[in-house]
Amino acid sequence: MGVTIAIDCMGGDHGPSVTVPAAFAFLRSHPDAKAILVGREDVLTPLLEPRAAEFGARVRIHPASEVVAMDDPPAIAMRSKKDSSMRVAIDLVKEGAADAAVSAGNTGALMAISRFVLKTLPGIDRPAIAAVLPTLTGHTYVLDLGANVDCSAEHLLQFGIMGAMLVSAVDHVDRPRVGLLNIGEEVIKGNEVVKDAAELLRTSGLNFCGNVEGNDIFKGTAHVVVCDGFVGNVALKTTEGLAQMLGAFLREEFGRNLLTKLVALVAMPVLKRFKRRVDHRRYNGAPLLGLRGVVVKSHGSADALAYEHALAKAAEAAANKLLDRIVDRMASMNEVKA
Amino acid sequence: MGVTIAIDCMGGDHGPSVTVPAAFAFLRSHPDAKAILVGREDVLTPLLEPRAAEFGARVRIHPASEVVAMDDPPAIAMRSKKDSSMRVAIDLVKEGAADAAVSAGNTGALMAISRFVLKTLPGIDRPAIAAVLPTLTGHTYVLDLGANVDCSAEHLLQFGIMGAMLVSAVDHVDRPRVGLLNIGEEVIKGNEVVKDAAELLRTSGLNFCGNVEGNDIFKGTAHVVVCDGFVGNVALKTTEGLAQMLGAFLREEFGRNLLTKLVALVAMPVLKRFKRRVDHRRYNGAPLLGLRGVVVKSHGSADALAYEHALAKAAEAAANKLLDRIVDRMASMNEVKA
Repeated sequence: MGVTIAIDCMGGDHGPSVTVPAAFAFLRSHPDAKAILVGREDVLTPLLEPRAAEFGARVRIHPASEVVAMDDPPAIAMRSKKDSSMRVAIDLVKEGAADAAVSAGNTGALMAISRFVLKTLPGIDRPAIAAVLPTLTGHTYVLDLGANVDCSAEHLLQFGIMGAMLVSAVDHVDRPRVGLLNIGEEVIKGNEVVKDAAELLRTSGLNFCGNVEGNDIFKGTAHVVVCDGFVGNVALKTTEGLAQMLGAFLREEFGRNLLTKLVALVAMPVLKRFKRRVDHRRYNGAPLLGLRGVVVKSHGSADALAYEHALAKAAEAAANKLLDRIVDRMASMNEVKA
Repeated sequence: MGVTIAIDCMGGDHGPSVTVPAAFAFLRSHPDAKAILVGREDVLTPLLEPRAAEFGARVRIHPASEVVAMDDPPAIAMRSKKDSSMRVAIDLVKEGAADAAVSAGNTGALMAISRFVLKTLPGIDRPAIAAVLPTLTGHTYVLDLGANVDCSAEHLLQFGIMGAMLVSAVDHVDRPRVGLLNIGEEVIKGNEVVKDAAELLRTSGLNFCGNVEGNDIFKGTAHVVVCDGFVGNVALKTTEGLAQMLGAFLREEFGRNLLTKLVALVAMPVLKRFKRRVDHRRYNGAPLLGLRGVVVKSHGSADALAYEHALAKAAEAAANKLLDRIVDRMASMNEVKA
């Protein structure tokens, strides 16, 4: 796929030491793709030079003199750092010089700048962030992940549409199953917004599979799980926390004494396969959906392998016309309404 | 501790085949405690008879002719099954014949009946359900778990107070740390209700440790994590779902072929220790807080070991005057305000 990705090389916890090697790995595995390395020339030039012959015109540096810090408030990042690598990467998408932008920088700034520069797609009130989680049968997208705290039923419907189009574009599933995150306690079945959203999703023409509960996420019941940003963020962080704790417990038990350490050596190949299966790096890359441009957020602490996955996801979304799919779907929904 | 527990022996997925053996085990490990087995006499008498000599007057049957089904709507369970084992167990608490009631039946019905029969404590608007989750350093209580979907800041404050008093009573922690579940994304830091609740908690006199995120739950940052019932339910179910998936992956990897099965045999003692550490049965028993009586909900699918843990938790809460602690704390809060 002949897409060009603008890479915010300065963003994230590790900056160019991760983003540049990841860009090279991405170019190797995507022979038709091109990359624009955005950031400080004095930093990037020496990193690119040894590989210049290998990639030729497929990679170039685009200078940007400033860097958005991980703790910069979004308003500051937007107003007073107009030559930041993050901003310039998004500008390149806006100008059509790149098909997608990827950044491991501060989520709030990335969303604010993307919204300001690119604007939202017709019919979309609020962009959303979609994260991928592993399931028993593959993986599932959950959105929103923290961009929108108080959502209306209409917003949740839009998240469902954007998520479904993302899965179509990236995973090539024709009619992805869309589930609405709800609670199953008999006391009450969800609040009013969720009830109204279920009604909207039911008549949306999407392949709506009804309410799903927190535990259903990992069963792969739905390809797309829709929820507001507060709930989605809690669910994602809870997942991260539990996985870390279980990992720590496993390490502690296998590291308890000489005997258990020997057992660990024997069990290593099996444990490695297990670990690979739930390796969060393989799920890195959260698309910002609903914008007039493809923007993918990498985890701030991503290593080169994880960052490469985010780049691949951006390329896949751009090559498979994610934006056109969302626009078409929104238009056909509005025709039905009219 | 000389407490008497009323046991809804008919509730849950397994009924008396689990609840009665659990009651016996509980009586053995709590030599001062008494149990009232509530349910159909024709079912319970033959189960009790062989043990009658062992426990003597410490255990008796209290007849109840009806059973609340797992899918009975709360209103039906309350109005048309007045002689259900669940209702009668709670009536025994109301009358003072028992110090606490335990049920593995339908959560909605249990909450509705408990609220109707026992009423709420002074100053408490809404009862809440508190669940326990394991952490790196011990365990933490999360509430609410699904009784209240739309909460005000005042409600969240009350959950914090009830949770703190629960930890004082059950875990004997003097000033438990109370955290407010929030999201850390830079885009927005929580909605208005959560912001207001943080302010109320800050000036409450509780040991408020500020906002915690989903991943902090498992770090043991707080003894009590406060959130609304929708968010809490999603967090709990997500945790269950992820744990089940990781367990399934581990089993699959160790069961892949003859060699990995041999490795599993070698690793068994280590894996067992790991499993024991995160065994959800040890965390069974979710207190319904804010009622004029101690009521503990067991997981519907609990086995005898899990159910015994729920009974022990009810006994601990009753023996350590959970209700008085909540009432005193609410009263001292109101004095400060006045």
